[in-house]
Amino acid sequence: MRLRRLVELMERERIDVYIISQKSSIYYYSGTTGGTFLLVNLDFEPLLLAPKVDYTISLEQAKGCRVYPYKRDQILEIIESELKKINARVIGFDDLPIEVYKGLNERYKEGEFINTSKIIWEMRKIKDPQEEALMRRAGELASIGMNSIMESLREGVREFELAAEAVHSMMRAGAEGLAFPISIASGPRSVYPHAGVTDREIKRGDFVTVDLGASYKEYKSDLTRTFIVGRPTKEKAEIYETVLKAKEAAMMEFKEGAKGRDLDKTARDIIDKEGSSEYFVHSLGHGVGLDIHEPPSLSEISEDTLTSGNIVTCEPGIYIPGKGGVRIEDTVLVGRGGAERLTRFVESLDEVCI
Amino acid sequence: MRLRRLVELMERERIDVYIISQKSSIYYYSGTTGGTFLLVNLDFEPLLLAPKVDYTISLEQAKGCRVYPYKRDQILEIIESELKKINARVIGFDDLPIEVYKGLNERYKEGEFINTSKIIWEMRKIKDPQEEALMRRAGELASIGMNSIMESLREGVREFELAAEAVHSMMRAGAEGLAFPISIASGPRSVYPHAGVTDREIKRGDFVTVDLGASYKEYKSDLTRTFIVGRPTKEKAEIYETVLKAKEAAMMEFKEGAKGRDLDKTARDIIDKEGSSEYFVHSLGHGVGLDIHEPPSLSEISEDTLTSGNIVTCEPGIYIPGKGGVRIEDTVLVGRGGAERLTRFVESLDEVCI
Repeated sequence: MRLRRLVELMERERIDVYIISQKSSIYYYSGTTGGTFLLVNLDFEPLLLAPKVDYTISLEQAKGCRVYPYKRDQILEIIESELKKINARVIGFDDLPIEVYKGLNERYKEGEFINTSKIIWEMRKIKDPQEEALMRRAGELASIGMNSIMESLREGVREFELAAEAVHSMMRAGAEGLAFPISIASGPRSVYPHAGVTDREIKRGDFVTVDLGASYKEYKSDLTRTFIVGRPTKEKAEIYETVLKAKEAAMMEFKEGAKGRDLDKTARDIIDKEGSSEYFVHSLGHGVGLDIHEPPSLSEISEDTLTSGNIVTCEPGIYIPGKGGVRIEDTVLVGRGGAERLTRFVESLDEVCI
Repeated sequence: MRLRRLVELMERERIDVYIISQKSSIYYYSGTTGGTFLLVNLDFEPLLLAPKVDYTISLEQAKGCRVYPYKRDQILEIIESELKKINARVIGFDDLPIEVYKGLNERYKEGEFINTSKIIWEMRKIKDPQEEALMRRAGELASIGMNSIMESLREGVREFELAAEAVHSMMRAGAEGLAFPISIASGPRSVYPHAGVTDREIKRGDFVTVDLGASYKEYKSDLTRTFIVGRPTKEKAEIYETVLKAKEAAMMEFKEGAKGRDLDKTARDIIDKEGSSEYFVHSLGHGVGLDIHEPPSLSEISEDTLTSGNIVTCEPGIYIPGKGGVRIEDTVLVGRGGAERLTRFVESLDEVCI
């Protein structure tokens, strides 16, 4: 049971109480979307604080913890009294609103408040079989969304119309929503890695970079493809092929034991060789799960090493101001000898030309 | 110009530097969706810090400020050097990640860091004509979404299928996305004010409470209706009529000068009279704009008074465990003599019975 394992890790780290306030972690440990703070102590009497408006849903969904409905101005008082009850000395937290952090430090000087989100991520970044199944479905739903965009993509259609088709098909197929707002970066906008969606009309010759993901029973997926409308110029084809080559080379190395930093370097070296290193303006990838961005990280400064059960993205990109941008991304499940794609979609240059 | 007005308010409050980190406020003052911190000083040399990945979009969108691309581990150093440059004593902030708050306090002991989000909201809660126009369109888009749900609602359809139709119609009509994840609370789930969307099949006799909103050029709308599938029981009809009466009574009082607390009380008194006071588990309403929840607040403990240009929700609800829940909500623009609905949709009992 997840809460039991957390208590073991708290004992190892000599933490008396853990105050969990990230929504996704509260869901991970208690099963409810309703609470605001989950207090876990070593005596294994977790307490979920829920605002009155979410009390009913918390009470019905939460497993393994008491649920207490609070009024906003009671938060500090309630947490303080829980800390006093067990004479807590070391209080871990994952994240706290500044006012709560300041208030607790002022009220409860007997304790030391330290960010210990690391031990939560030690658990969350390794997905169990049930989580893997949900992530597989989230991945399939993203592929369904991308397919409906490919079917609708043509000269004259607008970015928001494409986004509408994607979200419609994903939700018709069972997604409860989007993993994040869809980004459709067409033409000159393709140089923005985070582009959002506008009313721009797709034109002949455009790069159209589509980044989307589904949310399925709270689990997220992340998938990007760049399409080309019409036949690409030689320059555009080269940019595309370089990104694809970088992705393929990195993907070969995704397996247990690979270092995040090395994976990023494999992709970056290939882009470097084509003289585009300054245009790969983000890291190679990130963990995905209940959150769309979570550990481990695959970047130039990553300290993470992949293990079986990690679910991460592989997403190199090149964005050249004035010329255009390309990114190709899949979400993959890491295993002992390699990685399984959870998002699947065509990616050869021929196949992404519309 | 907004930044100029902010500097005036900073002078009034004797704030030397303002560190803005809420995305929506950065957008409000600079016009970009790309930056992470916007530093404003009294010499009117605003500096936007953008991560490398968002540098291009920030540079193109941001108006009235310099843009500086930072690496993650440089944040504290850059902010500290900006504070030193002008010998800042009082540093205002709206919100800060705890690590940044702690780091700045440790590094820059010459200054006092205080939460002064109030002066930003003094500006943001009064919408200008351009914002009103965008909010009107966001409101229309929400009504379009609700209409498509009403057209699709019947026995046997699933919650996520209804949500799919709503988001499709809103985005086809020009929304760039959702204001927040759609909530479709049907049958026993109608007692959850924040219900999300599941694969539950709609049944005869269900309350179906739909809460949705569109995002249009970053501005949000918020609209809720409760439908009844088939003819309502007497008890269900009474719950519905009480909520509608509470909403209508409160709506009559929405105008410049009305106190948030009094508006909440008007609605709450009517629900009290029917013996359902303990089941109205949230406040009457909240401001809406670039954020879906923002000042002013219309609650039992609100200190806010409405002024012309405020855009707020009016949304009483009754949720009786084991029986069902009803909420009716519109987003309205406050004026001198009354309020204009920005979301419009049928609400009489007859019309919401499917």
